[in-house]
Amino acid sequence: MRSLIRGVAVIRRPEEGVIPKADVIIESRRYAAVIEGGGAEGEFDRVIEGEGRLLVPGLVNAHTHLAMTLFRGLADDLPLMRWLEEKIWPAERKLTGEDVYWFSLLGLVEMIRCGTTAFADMYFFMEEVAAAVEEAKLRALLSYGIIATSEERIDSELKRAEAFARRWDGKAEGRIRAALSPHAPYTCGPEVWRQAAQLARELKIPIHTHLAETAEEVERFTAQHGKSPALWLEGLGVFAVPVLAAHCVHLSEKDMEILAAHGVTAVHCPSSNAKLACGIAPVAELLAAGVNVALGTDGAGSAGDLDMLEEMRWAALLGKLKAGDPEAVPAPQALSLATWRGAQALGGLKEWGTIEEGKRADGVLLSLEAAHLQPGHSPLSDLVYAAHSSDVVGVFVDGRPLLLEGELLTIDEERVRAECRARARKYR
Amino acid sequence: MRSLIRGVAVIRRPEEGVIPKADVIIESRRYAAVIEGGGAEGEFDRVIEGEGRLLVPGLVNAHTHLAMTLFRGLADDLPLMRWLEEKIWPAERKLTGEDVYWFSLLGLVEMIRCGTTAFADMYFFMEEVAAAVEEAKLRALLSYGIIATSEERIDSELKRAEAFARRWDGKAEGRIRAALSPHAPYTCGPEVWRQAAQLARELKIPIHTHLAETAEEVERFTAQHGKSPALWLEGLGVFAVPVLAAHCVHLSEKDMEILAAHGVTAVHCPSSNAKLACGIAPVAELLAAGVNVALGTDGAGSAGDLDMLEEMRWAALLGKLKAGDPEAVPAPQALSLATWRGAQALGGLKEWGTIEEGKRADGVLLSLEAAHLQPGHSPLSDLVYAAHSSDVVGVFVDGRPLLLEGELLTIDEERVRAECRARARKYR
Repeated sequence: MRSLIRGVAVIRRPEEGVIPKADVIIESRRYAAVIEGGGAEGEFDRVIEGEGRLLVPGLVNAHTHLAMTLFRGLADDLPLMRWLEEKIWPAERKLTGEDVYWFSLLGLVEMIRCGTTAFADMYFFMEEVAAAVEEAKLRALLSYGIIATSEERIDSELKRAEAFARRWDGKAEGRIRAALSPHAPYTCGPEVWRQAAQLARELKIPIHTHLAETAEEVERFTAQHGKSPALWLEGLGVFAVPVLAAHCVHLSEKDMEILAAHGVTAVHCPSSNAKLACGIAPVAELLAAGVNVALGTDGAGSAGDLDMLEEMRWAALLGKLKAGDPEAVPAPQALSLATWRGAQALGGLKEWGTIEEGKRADGVLLSLEAAHLQPGHSPLSDLVYAAHSSDVVGVFVDGRPLLLEGELLTIDEERVRAECRARARKYR
Repeated sequence: MRSLIRGVAVIRRPEEGVIPKADVIIESRRYAAVIEGGGAEGEFDRVIEGEGRLLVPGLVNAHTHLAMTLFRGLADDLPLMRWLEEKIWPAERKLTGEDVYWFSLLGLVEMIRCGTTAFADMYFFMEEVAAAVEEAKLRALLSYGIIATSEERIDSELKRAEAFARRWDGKAEGRIRAALSPHAPYTCGPEVWRQAAQLARELKIPIHTHLAETAEEVERFTAQHGKSPALWLEGLGVFAVPVLAAHCVHLSEKDMEILAAHGVTAVHCPSSNAKLACGIAPVAELLAAGVNVALGTDGAGSAGDLDMLEEMRWAALLGKLKAGDPEAVPAPQALSLATWRGAQALGGLKEWGTIEEGKRADGVLLSLEAAHLQPGHSPLSDLVYAAHSSDVVGVFVDGRPLLLEGELLTIDEERVRAECRARARKYR
């Protein structure tokens, strides 16, 4: 299979800006050539017109709970603990694997439509999440969320997480990778963390967790343990394996140094952190300290949507607000959080995450025709500050189109919407 | 002309929540009936299918600089003063009336597509802005932006503003109203303000200005004048006429009391204030103090877009962040900022701004079918936290459709985009 995207504007990696016109050749699931100015020759199985369009690396949603699309709009405008205890946890007790399967597909429709090609997901009924991802043909890092505050749950929770990881890591032609997910320092004791870190080392997989989301949580934890959650995790040897730490809103300078020293990725979730009034993660400071920062939407139950285009704008704007500096988190940097820095977080940057010869052909094709993208002084700025999911006309993973000219190719969207509407009723 | 929107979900005003199904009758440019449950009888000139759709009051963008769509993406990620002095002011010296006309139309395309039916605009070449608005058939409060730091400019600037106001106030079947716009306390001396207030009283029109956008500006002004900009304007008698004060990021408690006492509207521009790192206006505090708060995008040159659906989400989320309270600025309140509170700001609330019998039929019809709006537990929450401009299928002003089933009816969009792309080149 040999494909050509003809005469398209390209961002190979955000730091390099925009190539105004190129022919992009995809062969055997990889980018084979980016010919500046165009002029590709030869036979192609598929030719996609690129004029008036922009090709960028696929967006990476590095922290979400996919199936929580089920809870979108169920309970908004509440504090985190009331939202969890009064609304989400009671509703989650009714969850079935089938529901998780269908609402995962719903989330995947939304993610594809906004240009997401890879994501990191932590939830329950992960077999069903994995089945949905395999069908829809995105790339994903999946993990079962371990909550073990009491001793007797440790074994069964870790076993469940391990069984999922062993079964799914490397599956779906290598697009699915597994992680281990103790939920957070305050919901899992030291024994869980020690065993999870040991197991992650054995299985050569990362840990995906929540860290320092609210000020109260960090204060309470620090008072109890005599050290910050980040220091505590370091002490348990958790950072000896690759870690994705979602949120990282409330960190000390020392915490940031630790994350940087161990190559931990901080996954910034700006709109979720705003909606739950948790604060703004110090993105400019984290990057300056040498921490890799990726971007995530969090679940649609808390944040409202899974829209990575919108999340990029949130990252750029809240980055400026937090730093008190309009030059902080400029557009190319915001795009890097959403692309190659996410690939690095998911452990895939050697193989995918930029549009470079030899890399897996993951990408998003956007139309630049809409009124809100005119007059087009800077397609990169416009992408970050003005583009919408409705501008996305093509999405590719491993060179395979998941969306083309507005049509989803791997999911029966109409059926998914109907199933989800019917299944949602019992949760109201 | 008698129109029916059949079997549609309706938000008459945000505080009343959602009527799941109603027949809405529009007659002689006004809402004639909202029949809960449906069952409208009689003959209609136009019937619009409302199933799976939501009708809400038209969105009001209470602070923008429409023609600055010309500068979208021209210069991002810069501090306000460098952005103005190095990029925008030199570019504005090349501005022509024709350019303003075409880029106003471009802005109007974008505004209609995201459900905006009314807006307050302040800029130059206002004759051309007004001509574009009259053609496109939105509702608008228009004003020439007065900048007069030197004595000799006062007369000519005020005369120009007055001439525009006298010519256009009440025109376009009453959809266009005029205002006076001394640009800000720090760019216009006391004589301008006194004369403008006097003239506004005579002409029975409001004043639309900028207030307390950056901390530095407020500090410098207060040091120079011995009082805050708000107190200073009150002392000059400016608040004796209705005032729209854009931004209001940096206000004291006393300032808020003054705004409340005089019925001044604070126009919140959350994404612009974030992008320029100005801060977050204290929306929850302003509302608690009794100040009317409306919502604006600011110009697309600074904020990136004119999308009021997105701006509502920004208002809700930054409102929570600023208050440190996830219950602050809940979804219905965010929608009120974008609808009836904007109508109040523009001086129109008696005539339009809610979906109630006898009011002017301004409204937005949104499809609830997209994946990102499923499963639909709460259409009002989904509208604020997840809807996109691509969900907008109908826009009405005075009962006249400006957009229907995705098609713009008052603007030749393709021609506008082509003109704007061509005209933009000389500004690069």
